[in-house]
Amino acid sequence: MHILILGAAGMIGRKLTERLVRDGRLGGSPITALSLFDVALPEAPTGVPFPTATSAGDLSSPGEAERLAAERPDVIFHLAAIVSGEAEADFEKGYRINLDGTRLLLEAVRLAGQGYRPRVVFTSSIAVFGAPFPADGIGDTFHTTPLTSYGTQKAIGELLLADYSRRGFIDGIGIRLPTICVRPGKPNKAASGFFSGIIREPLNGQEAILPVSESVRHWHASPRAAIAFLLHAAALDTAALGARRSLTMPGLSVTVGEQIAALRRVAGDRIAGLIRHQPDPIIEGIVQGWAERFRADRAEALGFEAERDFEEIIRVYVEDELGGRIPA
Amino acid sequence: MHILILGAAGMIGRKLTERLVRDGRLGGSPITALSLFDVALPEAPTGVPFPTATSAGDLSSPGEAERLAAERPDVIFHLAAIVSGEAEADFEKGYRINLDGTRLLLEAVRLAGQGYRPRVVFTSSIAVFGAPFPADGIGDTFHTTPLTSYGTQKAIGELLLADYSRRGFIDGIGIRLPTICVRPGKPNKAASGFFSGIIREPLNGQEAILPVSESVRHWHASPRAAIAFLLHAAALDTAALGARRSLTMPGLSVTVGEQIAALRRVAGDRIAGLIRHQPDPIIEGIVQGWAERFRADRAEALGFEAERDFEEIIRVYVEDELGGRIPA
Repeated sequence: MHILILGAAGMIGRKLTERLVRDGRLGGSPITALSLFDVALPEAPTGVPFPTATSAGDLSSPGEAERLAAERPDVIFHLAAIVSGEAEADFEKGYRINLDGTRLLLEAVRLAGQGYRPRVVFTSSIAVFGAPFPADGIGDTFHTTPLTSYGTQKAIGELLLADYSRRGFIDGIGIRLPTICVRPGKPNKAASGFFSGIIREPLNGQEAILPVSESVRHWHASPRAAIAFLLHAAALDTAALGARRSLTMPGLSVTVGEQIAALRRVAGDRIAGLIRHQPDPIIEGIVQGWAERFRADRAEALGFEAERDFEEIIRVYVEDELGGRIPA
Repeated sequence: MHILILGAAGMIGRKLTERLVRDGRLGGSPITALSLFDVALPEAPTGVPFPTATSAGDLSSPGEAERLAAERPDVIFHLAAIVSGEAEADFEKGYRINLDGTRLLLEAVRLAGQGYRPRVVFTSSIAVFGAPFPADGIGDTFHTTPLTSYGTQKAIGELLLADYSRRGFIDGIGIRLPTICVRPGKPNKAASGFFSGIIREPLNGQEAILPVSESVRHWHASPRAAIAFLLHAAALDTAALGARRSLTMPGLSVTVGEQIAALRRVAGDRIAGLIRHQPDPIIEGIVQGWAERFRADRAEALGFEAERDFEEIIRVYVEDELGGRIPA
């Protein structure tokens, strides 16, 4: 089985690569080749028992998607995207990469022909939804009314994925990822950054800024859960999806206050005391339009699983990023 | 007020043109110019008290959308589309006209700049929805899961319309038209053609073929109601829409049996007896995935109105197409 990862240099792409290299197989089939693509050259994994190739490029450039499809990978993980904040700041770049890039990929696969019909796992986002929301959570038949250009581009990607699948050009599945928490690495400027920052920075002995009130509620899953979603989606019998190819992934609905209480239970008062509340009206405004909770019934029935409580999400971070050690 | 109609040569485009010429104004403002565009040259209306221009072209051709936007019309009715059957038969043409054409139009408006922000009235369709449906009708928050490429392209158009409106590039409103019944003119090969044919052909003294069972239920509005939707959408205060720019239009949910009973009441047994049942399994299969009824609460609250019973739909046809005369 030949696997292609688009967006392989990102956080999820790197973790997916690591996992595939470690497993050596996907859904019961041995991996025979792995191709890694991103706008910056992905790091080549070492000690790999199958051939790997890395390349860098712009998915929306002429010929790039054709080159990738010509290798006829059996599974394509399409994780490549301009993120929410950048797609909002640079309207043209967001549409070029997130919409045109996705469409060019699907077109390249369609035009490759000769019975080529790969599994395409597309990472969508809960940003396809926009307020107002039902009070009891967003169910599987709620409409997609994005309030960002990024969410618009992801919702369009879902529609294309479904139509190209219905036509038999690809075997697509879209997974709407929750906000990934705890993101490893440095703080970034994303409006959602604080959800991870208030856990990650204290666990690394640093102060964290909380720009919103503790009553803010949001929908989370760990990076480990996200990788499990991707692997499960790649191996799933898509007959069970029918024509509705995109699924809201399970997650955990918690308030910021519940996040902090969980940190206190896992790591103690001193660590939790490193969070400093400093309201930011702009971030408070942005976060107000975000989804608080979902009912991910379809995905759960199909075997997708996320964490059950926020302490588990913190423990995943400690295990996967801090070598299991909670600082005293 | 300068008005541009894209798709002006189609049935709805011609009726809209007639109505605008007759009214001389739109939403209280006098019409100062009317531009008519289609792939075939639209007929120029006669006896018009304001300048009219007609042109033919392909909206997806380079420069065409820019040329149209350069005239800076205040209102753009975007009715141009490859219809459902053709978009399904010709995948590339459907995406080129219905997706690229719409996007190029929006881009041309965006790039015209200098505060240009026209009202764009986009005709979407109930084809954005796909079975299975809720038994009590499709409400305003039901997700769009089209089962045709045409429906996919319309759903993408809705998303673009909302994002370009949110960004302030246009002031857009999308209206999801019911199946238009009774369509005037010759029978066509659309799978939905019989809904009109079983009324129109008998009223013109001809036999009509009914390819499905009388229990088939569907969602209808007259051409006159469709024109009223377009005019109301062009003049509506879009502040009431918020970010959700597309609306399911009101309509009438009736079975084929109810259509026939209404025809019998309006025109008598002899006319109704001109319908011959000749089952067509292919059409029966297609129609099975279509929506049967909607709850168009938002549009109704905003003042959109359709017919209340099928006899009224038949009478509209008799008045508008047969000069009010029911054949004996």
